Amino acid sequence: MRSAVFSVGTEILFGQIVNTNTVYLSQKLNQMGIDVLYHETVGDNPGRVKEVLARLLTEVDLVITTGGLGPTQDDLTKEMAAEVMGVELKIHEESLEKIRSYFVKTGRAMTENNIKQAMLPASDGFILPNDAGTAPGCVFEKNGKIVVCLPGPPREMQKMFEDSVVPYLHSLTNEVIYSDMVRVFGPGESQLETMLEDLITGQTDPTLATYAKEGECSVRITSKRGTLEEARAAVEEMAEKVTAILGDTIFSYHDEDLKDVVAKKLMERGITISCAESCTGGLFASTLIGVEGISSVFERGIVTYSNRAKVEELGVKEETLQRFGAVSEETAREMTAGLKKKTGSRVCVSVTGIAGPDGGTPEKPVGLVYICVDFDGKVECKEVRVRPVSRNWIRNYTMLMMMDMVRRAIG
Amino acid sequence: MRSAVFSVGTEILFGQIVNTNTVYLSQKLNQMGIDVLYHETVGDNPGRVKEVLARLLTEVDLVITTGGLGPTQDDLTKEMAAEVMGVELKIHEESLEKIRSYFVKTGRAMTENNIKQAMLPASDGFILPNDAGTAPGCVFEKNGKIVVCLPGPPREMQKMFEDSVVPYLHSLTNEVIYSDMVRVFGPGESQLETMLEDLITGQTDPTLATYAKEGECSVRITSKRGTLEEARAAVEEMAEKVTAILGDTIFSYHDEDLKDVVAKKLMERGITISCAESCTGGLFASTLIGVEGISSVFERGIVTYSNRAKVEELGVKEETLQRFGAVSEETAREMTAGLKKKTGSRVCVSVTGIAGPDGGTPEKPVGLVYICVDFDGKVECKEVRVRPVSRNWIRNYTMLMMMDMVRRAIG
Repeated sequence: MRSAVFSVGTEILFGQIVNTNTVYLSQKLNQMGIDVLYHETVGDNPGRVKEVLARLLTEVDLVITTGGLGPTQDDLTKEMAAEVMGVELKIHEESLEKIRSYFVKTGRAMTENNIKQAMLPASDGFILPNDAGTAPGCVFEKNGKIVVCLPGPPREMQKMFEDSVVPYLHSLTNEVIYSDMVRVFGPGESQLETMLEDLITGQTDPTLATYAKEGECSVRITSKRGTLEEARAAVEEMAEKVTAILGDTIFSYHDEDLKDVVAKKLMERGITISCAESCTGGLFASTLIGVEGISSVFERGIVTYSNRAKVEELGVKEETLQRFGAVSEETAREMTAGLKKKTGSRVCVSVTGIAGPDGGTPEKPVGLVYICVDFDGKVECKEVRVRPVSRNWIRNYTMLMMMDMVRRAIG
Repeated sequence: MRSAVFSVGTEILFGQIVNTNTVYLSQKLNQMGIDVLYHETVGDNPGRVKEVLARLLTEVDLVITTGGLGPTQDDLTKEMAAEVMGVELKIHEESLEKIRSYFVKTGRAMTENNIKQAMLPASDGFILPNDAGTAPGCVFEKNGKIVVCLPGPPREMQKMFEDSVVPYLHSLTNEVIYSDMVRVFGPGESQLETMLEDLITGQTDPTLATYAKEGECSVRITSKRGTLEEARAAVEEMAEKVTAILGDTIFSYHDEDLKDVVAKKLMERGITISCAESCTGGLFASTLIGVEGISSVFERGIVTYSNRAKVEELGVKEETLQRFGAVSEETAREMTAGLKKKTGSRVCVSVTGIAGPDGGTPEKPVGLVYICVDFDGKVECKEVRVRPVSRNWIRNYTMLMMMDMVRRAIG
């Protein structure tokens, strides 16, 4: 099936918002085996909406629109789709009632123009309920062409797509898609591709695709079969082959973030954690504390940015700082030891390094980092030379390395 | 002038990358007073590139393309633009030389297909040098229509646009644009619009536009005049009127981030700073430490997430915690006092609050936050009820409030 994603909204043309809806829908459609041929955006201009929609339907079978379903005069996507498809709109009483009760519930007055939102296809289509806002979506289906109208706010759009559009699109194909995202820390994207080359080459089903972002990598495994069980089994079988190659660089088989994997392990097993950070400057603590419920295990974080703070807070010896420098394995070890003594947390992790752009020397260049983890008395230290892309890239990658070392330490 | 932004790249249709080029170009074009009517994206498919380009040129005067200028077989944007515009391409020796020396400089072998990148308009156009990569861009200009071809990598595209395309587009209009972004913390976007209503209504030149993101707001003031001096003077005059209304909620007149404004003030005046964080969990420290050179003033950060850490690290009294709770002004005051005693930093800022989603009560709901700042002994505390959008929204907004309180405290 050939498709196009069509966004309506003047604010997008102004560059005021990033069009994340298009990214989301493109990923989902591709995962379902539906080709996306065009992305188009126009403003809230009924003439242009109609013209683009009519043209796209000569090129593709399925157009998904986002935006322009609201109550204002400007919101005309549904009306234009109805005209292009030759379908009548009429008031859908059930949807109108739902909009009314939404206003009652949120204690606001419903103005007349909201009735417009309940104008929906009288035939040749169906309604997509909106469980996260007021504007319902709808599907127009006629002469082998399909237009799906979704609301603009990403939260509403995504919920409607997942709940109603995915099952509908699946029902059209007699095939079921199952897909999983294997997340990896360690190898870069090109290294990953080389490692998986034999599996990727000549892939038919399941397919493998690699992705990269800021030092993390993932492999999406997708299978399209007659039943969900078959598709899932094929994905799981491929996941085993991938595991045989990538081993314990894999931290999730279900698209979880590294911080969530680490936090979950700590919380499930009640393992307390504290951290002492120099170059990352609180990023490790802040990232872990982004996870709900972490207060049950996160004890303390110390950002010992100055040498004085390293001495006073963690008992790093002046002599160590003078002899080996603040950026050294010796200092990292003493930071961890001091943190352990002070907090008694079962996991104590510390880091010291040079985030740059200044402060590097030939012996200790920007990007040089020492990480040290103590789990129940077992200490592991690591020296890493992070690629000096930028100050914040180094900090972020270092934070990920700390997460990964904690993940491996607690096992 | 009417324009369209046209992106070429299969990876965009797959949803593998977010199309930030389109956002960047749309902002820039709108700021220059050039209307953007369409965003379009197709894959690396020569037929579709040509078809879309031909159609867009019937609707608009200017099409800016990104992507498809590289050395591979897939990269055909320039070739299709030449066909549509009826312009011949030929080898541009100077550009070829530049590409050759780029390969020598980076120590890589130049393959034959790279010669293709030096095929540029023989007439009716000109070349846009690429100072950040190998593929030059170009402009086709014929019969009152313009096609500007830019490379896909954002860094290369932005540099080429700023250096070569902006002056070219200005030269077409005999007008000069000057624009500044006034950044504001405190009022929300709708509040800001109401406050500036009289200035915004009936705006001709300069124009005002408001923007919002995650609790921060901005006002862009733009003027288009005969000379740069006139345009700048008009923007500055309007900035004074805006200041009369928004007062000290303004933290920058030149689009700087709040963290950068605060860091600059601290560094310029050599004011030392330490922080003690509970609900933000290191986000304040981490954000400030994102600024280059901050090590000259940032002394120490303590993430006292547990009650025990508040007592041990900052000397908060057990009695205070029991009587008023960890989330109270009394605790925030003692955190700041303890931090001051321990570090002696001239600015000591502390925060305690409920980030949620759990842990709220009717008296102390999720989003309740206490911030306390001590600057050279002068202490200010603030109770705020942050809108409980999500855990990380609360944490981020709280961090911004801390920044803003520090900004106001040091003056």
